Amino acid sequence: MEDVAIVGVGQSHFSRKCEMTIKELVFEAYGEAMENLGISNTDIGASILCSSLYDNQRSAESPVAEYLGLNPQPTFLIENACAASSTGLRVAWSLIKSGLYKIVAVIGLEKMSGQTSREAAEMMGRAYDVTWESSFGLTMPGGYAIHARAHMAKYGTTEEQLAKVRVKNSHYSVKNPKATFKKELALEEILDSIPVAAPLKMLDCCANADGASFTILAQGEVAKEITKIPVWIAGLGSGSNTGISRRKTLTSFTCAKQAAEQAYAMAGVGPGDIHVAEVHDCFTIAEILAYEDLGFAAPGEGPRLIEEGETYLEGKIPVNPDGGLLCKGHPIGATGGSQIRTIVQQLRGDAGETQVKSAEIGLAHNIGGIGHYANVTILRR
Amino acid sequence: MEDVAIVGVGQSHFSRKCEMTIKELVFEAYGEAMENLGISNTDIGASILCSSLYDNQRSAESPVAEYLGLNPQPTFLIENACAASSTGLRVAWSLIKSGLYKIVAVIGLEKMSGQTSREAAEMMGRAYDVTWESSFGLTMPGGYAIHARAHMAKYGTTEEQLAKVRVKNSHYSVKNPKATFKKELALEEILDSIPVAAPLKMLDCCANADGASFTILAQGEVAKEITKIPVWIAGLGSGSNTGISRRKTLTSFTCAKQAAEQAYAMAGVGPGDIHVAEVHDCFTIAEILAYEDLGFAAPGEGPRLIEEGETYLEGKIPVNPDGGLLCKGHPIGATGGSQIRTIVQQLRGDAGETQVKSAEIGLAHNIGGIGHYANVTILRR
Repeated sequence: MEDVAIVGVGQSHFSRKCEMTIKELVFEAYGEAMENLGISNTDIGASILCSSLYDNQRSAESPVAEYLGLNPQPTFLIENACAASSTGLRVAWSLIKSGLYKIVAVIGLEKMSGQTSREAAEMMGRAYDVTWESSFGLTMPGGYAIHARAHMAKYGTTEEQLAKVRVKNSHYSVKNPKATFKKELALEEILDSIPVAAPLKMLDCCANADGASFTILAQGEVAKEITKIPVWIAGLGSGSNTGISRRKTLTSFTCAKQAAEQAYAMAGVGPGDIHVAEVHDCFTIAEILAYEDLGFAAPGEGPRLIEEGETYLEGKIPVNPDGGLLCKGHPIGATGGSQIRTIVQQLRGDAGETQVKSAEIGLAHNIGGIGHYANVTILRR
Repeated sequence: MEDVAIVGVGQSHFSRKCEMTIKELVFEAYGEAMENLGISNTDIGASILCSSLYDNQRSAESPVAEYLGLNPQPTFLIENACAASSTGLRVAWSLIKSGLYKIVAVIGLEKMSGQTSREAAEMMGRAYDVTWESSFGLTMPGGYAIHARAHMAKYGTTEEQLAKVRVKNSHYSVKNPKATFKKELALEEILDSIPVAAPLKMLDCCANADGASFTILAQGEVAKEITKIPVWIAGLGSGSNTGISRRKTLTSFTCAKQAAEQAYAMAGVGPGDIHVAEVHDCFTIAEILAYEDLGFAAPGEGPRLIEEGETYLEGKIPVNPDGGLLCKGHPIGATGGSQIRTIVQQLRGDAGETQVKSAEIGLAHNIGGIGHYANVTILRR
């Protein structure tokens, strides 16, 4: 499958509060993505801004494209909660594969520091059904806490096991200069952090952040001309789910399982073939669910994977070697692109101290909402 | 070009204020689109919600898909100001053409009555650059008034000529049961209506509205199986522009010219081959600009086209036989889909009293913002 490749990746520094405008944030990510790439702006056939627009600017695709010099090419915005930029990647793949454009840019963006935490939580809540869910007080941590409780009840998962996900991700965060939190955490610190939505504590949760990502895709022949190491899009999968109240299971995100099955089938590989993965650890429980939904572990066996260290760099399937959402921070629209950047760096052999040896096939798992949307992307060197 | 066809079109009644929820609005459009179509919900491979989300519900694609029964298929949101649902159509075309899905639904939606007119105007304003444009008071009518003044200064266009666009569109509005304003207007009524942004008066402007549209696209072979008269997507074109302050011309939307050129080239036709057109008449001046940008008239000759009655049903190029945005009302995300519905009805021969005889090739021209985004779609029976 050498149809469409990723030829450039970049991201801004992620932080809790950034003094840059959204245009400047995107420009930082754009700069990194365009480095060493033999193209100019006019070669980019279209751009897709992926964001939930927490910033004051509405319809930001026009001001952002203008700032980057991407007019008069078409530009539009995709929103898909926290899965926006992996959805953008799938759409960009289609726009190239269908023959409309040769090169497409996928821009991830969120600037959340303009709101107080309370305001942002309220806005995030309204991403869930305002009739049946958010109006009764459902928030992001609350929704994930429900899934954590269900997993604990069915499989005996413990708070210590959840906390060990954060221990691992914090261990790698110190190697990621663009992460919001770069500090190794001990198990006790996590367990002793203040409760947010039991059983989830402060350090089980990722944080809102300001940040941008930039991913450039190109048609196969073009990709080989403009970059030394194209990273091929081998598999794409996607699914959605109803609101939580109508789901048949709370110990899995069925849409993520479905997305994984589609992506594995398209790429012609299975879970055992993946050398490195980025998964959507917005909360510690979410990484455990991802292990199981992606087939890295059988249902209920996810906690054992972290207990046994199998998702560390030396384990059988290294997960989140960049610190994950838990440590990078989670600028909603930018997160999917940041995951793709890490996998591309790994497959290019550019991951420095967190390089997985001989990584040739990587996977990114990006969830929107509380398992409302899921995209799985498989990349191959 | 028999790759991808439109197999179903629907829209809700458009109105200034509707008591239905966004889910119910979409359901009305969905019902019409699915009529006489040999498919069920599970055949729809993915859905795209196209909206600027003036409603309280954020990330509305999940609640809407759930209400329609379109889970677990992927769903995401596209925003592109007033051009959202024609952008959605182009993306849906790509998703099918690239082989990812066989059938895709494009849902247009806006419910604007939850805001006061002042609040909605402020939200709309923030779709323009908040640093350089909306912060200095630029609004939609203001932006279009600038273009009207420029056209008057350069070509001697008159307020009477602008008003004649509304006369024509109101003439057809009485035949459209789903329009917001169904009343034939005299030239004097329009000229005597209160000033909004000189030279534009109240009746030169379209109105915010509540409404939904629903368009179903299918891969060619599938289309022939599930509907009697597939309407083929023959040409697609798209472009963007900078904010107004950096434009070289104010008497044309260059992105619309570019979109038209692309669409004509892809379809292998020219302006003279179009039998019926829907153009984005958010203001009367916008329809005049469209005549010229689409090549129906030379630059500066647009006003003569309306003066001479050439865009009436009996003229050489009938435009907006459904009453246009001026009379239908303009529920932002739904408008592009409503235009496509009218062209499909015309090409199927289902347009009743406003049927253009032997219409075989039709065009839809959808603008976002004040010429910030433009899509041109050419359909063929």
